[in-house]
Amino acid sequence: MSAPEEIKTTSENGVLTISLNRPDRLNAWTPKMASEVEQAVRAAGEDDAVRVIVITGEGRGFCAGADMQGLQGIQSGGGEAPEAEAPAHKDGIEQLYPGRFGYLYACPKPIIAAINGPCAGIGLIFALYADLRFANEVAKFTTAFAQRGLIAEHGIAWLLPRLIGEANALDLLFTARKFDGREAAQMGLVNAALPGGDLQAHVDGVAQHLATQVSPRSVAIMKRQIRESYFQDFAASLEVADEEMKNSFSAFDFKEGVASFVEKRAPAFQGR
Amino acid sequence: MSAPEEIKTTSENGVLTISLNRPDRLNAWTPKMASEVEQAVRAAGEDDAVRVIVITGEGRGFCAGADMQGLQGIQSGGGEAPEAEAPAHKDGIEQLYPGRFGYLYACPKPIIAAINGPCAGIGLIFALYADLRFANEVAKFTTAFAQRGLIAEHGIAWLLPRLIGEANALDLLFTARKFDGREAAQMGLVNAALPGGDLQAHVDGVAQHLATQVSPRSVAIMKRQIRESYFQDFAASLEVADEEMKNSFSAFDFKEGVASFVEKRAPAFQGR
Amino acid sequence: MSAPEEIKTTSENGVLTISLNRPDRLNAWTPKMASEVEQAVRAAGEDDAVRVIVITGEGRGFCAGADMQGLQGIQSGGGEAPEAEAPAHKDGIEQLYPGRFGYLYACPKPIIAAINGPCAGIGLIFALYADLRFANEVAKFTTAFAQRGLIAEHGIAWLLPRLIGEANALDLLFTARKFDGREAAQMGLVNAALPGGDLQAHVDGVAQHLATQVSPRSVAIMKRQIRESYFQDFAASLEVADEEMKNSFSAFDFKEGVASFVEKRAPAFQGR
Repeated sequence: MSAPEEIKTTSENGVLTISLNRPDRLNAWTPKMASEVEQAVRAAGEDDAVRVIVITGEGRGFCAGADMQGLQGIQSGGGEAPEAEAPAHKDGIEQLYPGRFGYLYACPKPIIAAINGPCAGIGLIFALYADLRFANEVAKFTTAFAQRGLIAEHGIAWLLPRLIGEANALDLLFTARKFDGREAAQMGLVNAALPGGDLQAHVDGVAQHLATQVSPRSVAIMKRQIRESYFQDFAASLEVADEEMKNSFSAFDFKEGVASFVEKRAPAFQGR
Repeated sequence: MSAPEEIKTTSENGVLTISLNRPDRLNAWTPKMASEVEQAVRAAGEDDAVRVIVITGEGRGFCAGADMQGLQGIQSGGGEAPEAEAPAHKDGIEQLYPGRFGYLYACPKPIIAAINGPCAGIGLIFALYADLRFANEVAKFTTAFAQRGLIAEHGIAWLLPRLIGEANALDLLFTARKFDGREAAQMGLVNAALPGGDLQAHVDGVAQHLATQVSPRSVAIMKRQIRESYFQDFAASLEVADEEMKNSFSAFDFKEGVASFVEKRAPAFQGR
Repeated sequence: MSAPEEIKTTSENGVLTISLNRPDRLNAWTPKMASEVEQAVRAAGEDDAVRVIVITGEGRGFCAGADMQGLQGIQSGGGEAPEAEAPAHKDGIEQLYPGRFGYLYACPKPIIAAINGPCAGIGLIFALYADLRFANEVAKFTTAFAQRGLIAEHGIAWLLPRLIGEANALDLLFTARKFDGREAAQMGLVNAALPGGDLQAHVDGVAQHLATQVSPRSVAIMKRQIRESYFQDFAASLEVADEEMKNSFSAFDFKEGVASFVEKRAPAFQGR
């Protein structure tokens, strides 16, 4: 496995940070970047030392969308849709969410997008596949597609109305207008918007909380429960919950969760 | 039917108030309490004198979650999941929403949760099965599960993203962080948050409005329409609506609704 | 085709404005008005000169609901449900959304409701079938049904929880209370609320943006993608998106979208 060229990764206290790393292009999306992010996330999903994944952008951007050279290549007839190849392995969640970003939903670790700057087109779609999103309040967002003659790509037509309601989804898709992190928070597109200088500290705080204060086993099961729930009726979702609740009762993390509460001490979860 | 021990009920002007009544334990949930609430709600559902049900907590709490003695019993191997037995009777709505709280959705009367104080774990889930929720703006909420090594129990994985959107649902489930009534209102988890001193008067106002200004027949049908809509495509939901609209035209309450409007007087609905 | 009597239409710069035109009755809904609106929207859907449709009300109201003379006729036994007849032609979207307003979802042009004043009952339902909604911040809204002994008509039981969440939907349907444009915006029922004097200019701005800055082809496809998404699992929605993305690559509007971006000039989309 060669060293990544278009992302940077750092790991500390159970938190893996993946930085999109083409700062001179506002981290515009390329097939190589896509492949490197996927490789890093899949590896982290199987690495017991990683409890939380944070994705952010180097420099002043998050991800400005598809690299325009790629789009121009397609436009001039010299190219193909980037990353058309299908990934090899697909587990249950990736069967429910096929396509190039399903691996993010399938990853059993919580994934936080720290949206530090411009977030457009496929960069925005990528961010929607994170579990939690925090934004610089002045970061600029846009779907961009309608201004390029494109359509609602990569599942955003399905995801966006479920996240922010139909009225907002149609607004953002039809107009392709720019909006900032503050408005993104009001719509529920991001969990919170913060002054740029506070974003990293806030995300660090949430990541550390997730890495130390909650059961990784609980989080992994809940992530799957939520993502499956859209394809289940209530009864089927409840059946899974009842089964998983019973399983929890014999797990180490449940014993530790109750014991730490009763003994008024920090928990030491093991994820099993 | 013996007198309830862990709830209190009062009835006035068509409004039945059920108060969880273990104030020294912040009304922590027990199998006995669960059974008494269910019995009271089922009886009210069939009592023509009751038009609205309000559920609140005695003392400074709403419901602090499962009684920890119960959880410790399970944790030490000496217990079982509380209330594992299945209720006997299940009508249509309870078939769509099985589990221990489906009777609240099946009840044909509007149910208002007045969340006066701490609302955690199974107490929060219970509140989600009310139709309307109003909270003290400083009441503390938490899902709690991930901090105890538990999972998204009793259908909350299905209900929460539909109520507050996926980003908020994952936040509250993953972090198990505390949040207050004001934030609950911003997320849409409660209909409104009010200063503690104003909560009861506000809930009384809404309850009285529902008891006197709208048709109980209309409310019962609309409650069922909404709760069924998640399992219907649009065409099936519309078919029910068209049928129920026609039925309404020959009902007393429609005649009274139009007549009271034309005559500019208060309506006297009969629920038929 | 005779001239309409209960609506007014004006067309300018690609924007067709349809005004409900019974100002002395706050534009109360009649079978004739319904038929004239439908005829105008269906014609605009097939007219290449129309890129955007705006619907508003003449005078100080948007639409105060069903004309009470119609309801009184039904109530006194002398009438039928208005507009009971089924429209003749139904394309794919209208099969998913049958009923009297499905043609608005099926129309390939973006439809903006400019809610200038009172918006009640069937007037509110009509507005829900627009794609975008902007309101005078003091415009009064109400579902009205429960105060007339009616039920959640014409698909609102299905649409409303998906738009504003279940807690708000139950509130508005059960209580039938009045709320203003500002609260409608907070709930997500309208995209934005503006001071009355600014509403028309704001809607004009959005309409002109949609008419000139985005591809009509993109908007038409995205409108269909969103409206179909509720009846698709993620995989089916993604399959449509992937197919439509590929189709876009050979469309004029994609070439123009990329070229205008690279050349830093305004786009001249053709909708193909």
